[in-house]
Amino acid sequence: MNAPAIILSRPQLGENIGAAARAMANFGLSDLRLVAPVCRWPNDKATAMAVGASNITDSARVFDTLEEALGDLQLVYATTARERGVAKPILSPAAATRLRAASSRGERTGLLFGGERSGLDNDEVSLATAVITIPTDPGFSSINLGQAVLLIGYEWFRATDQTPPERIDHGPINKPATEEELFQFFAHLEDELLKSGFLYPPDKAPPAIRNLRALFHRANMTDQEVRTLRGMIKALVRDKRRRT
Amino acid sequence: MNAPAIILSRPQLGENIGAAARAMANFGLSDLRLVAPVCRWPNDKATAMAVGASNITDSARVFDTLEEALGDLQLVYATTARERGVAKPILSPAAATRLRAASSRGERTGLLFGGERSGLDNDEVSLATAVITIPTDPGFSSINLGQAVLLIGYEWFRATDQTPPERIDHGPINKPATEEELFQFFAHLEDELLKSGFLYPPDKAPPAIRNLRALFHRANMTDQEVRTLRGMIKALVRDKRRRT
Repeated sequence: MNAPAIILSRPQLGENIGAAARAMANFGLSDLRLVAPVCRWPNDKATAMAVGASNITDSARVFDTLEEALGDLQLVYATTARERGVAKPILSPAAATRLRAASSRGERTGLLFGGERSGLDNDEVSLATAVITIPTDPGFSSINLGQAVLLIGYEWFRATDQTPPERIDHGPINKPATEEELFQFFAHLEDELLKSGFLYPPDKAPPAIRNLRALFHRANMTDQEVRTLRGMIKALVRDKRRRT
Repeated sequence: MNAPAIILSRPQLGENIGAAARAMANFGLSDLRLVAPVCRWPNDKATAMAVGASNITDSARVFDTLEEALGDLQLVYATTARERGVAKPILSPAAATRLRAASSRGERTGLLFGGERSGLDNDEVSLATAVITIPTDPGFSSINLGQAVLLIGYEWFRATDQTPPERIDHGPINKPATEEELFQFFAHLEDELLKSGFLYPPDKAPPAIRNLRALFHRANMTDQEVRTLRGMIKALVRDKRRRT
């Protein structure tokens, strides 16, 4: 899978180039292209901001013109702030999945970002296949260059990330309690609560018990946690008997 | 709709607090809480990085302890790098939609981020309802603090953003061409191509014409663009006739 190139047109601040490089490393991107950088290049501040991703700034290629920087690519999305009157498709960041589809067909793809001061101009946008616009609060739509690279890289990465939307990692030793372990815990707890008078009068017991069971079901306990709770009950009871 | 509070625990660099504030403004967040900031506060570098969002840094509240900073909240997600053994739900960033659901029920919510050097420690995580982990390249999972706030803010904002995944904005004047305008253009083009000999021999014409029609259908032209193309054909034909 050839990951998309990140093309920064006329970037002004080394810090932002470095932040873009770090964001690229977060999401498995490595082909950084700079078009007519306004700042010095190579740039110490870029290297510093890239932190562990200085291999990306080190291997960045510099081009004089955007045409040269894009020449070998077959699908290029330009990232712009919300705007009117671009007569080409305006896509949400989730369209980064289309770059993946193109890559899997062997196409070379790229993501184009404009300079800090005014973004991409109309001529630059005219060289791209389509436009990606990041949805923002309409009152504050200016996104930092490094942040924009991060967001689009995230969407590209996310497209095939297999992480489940929700999981509980109990570690290598513990496992979710079985229903039997839970039922034994319920029996233990309810027995002690009855003996203690907490569930008095007896005819009020069932709803109170159901509520307690629901609480402990919601907690999705491990076998170890069930053992811990049973130990707690024993300790509390023992202490009380000692005091009385 | 009360937006989630952003809580930064022991932040070290004013620049990152400022970047977080700017990212908050991008996505409609405003309640910034700092727990025991390591850097001076107020902080000039934070104000500079916040750019137009200095109202958020100006109104940030500072707390001595995380317990105080979270006290009024009812649902708090802690953001951490991928890790093992957290015995509570580990959610993807898209879980930010759950904060919206909670807010719409009137609950007060928050997103908790750790310091730059080592993130949240286990005690801090233990004060949160659940954990959000940003999926990254396993080889480079350390996300800058401001970038992490941006990503989660983006997911929160995106949850109800109404922007269609793809649109073409033809501006206030132009509209998509009707089929009739397109058919008239096809007839005009094909007539001139036949006359010019481009479609010779005549029995090869139908596939060539179908391919051309497909190309122009894919372009999703406006009425104005159809008129422009027809003007081009006229100009090319006129020029040729002048030359011959």
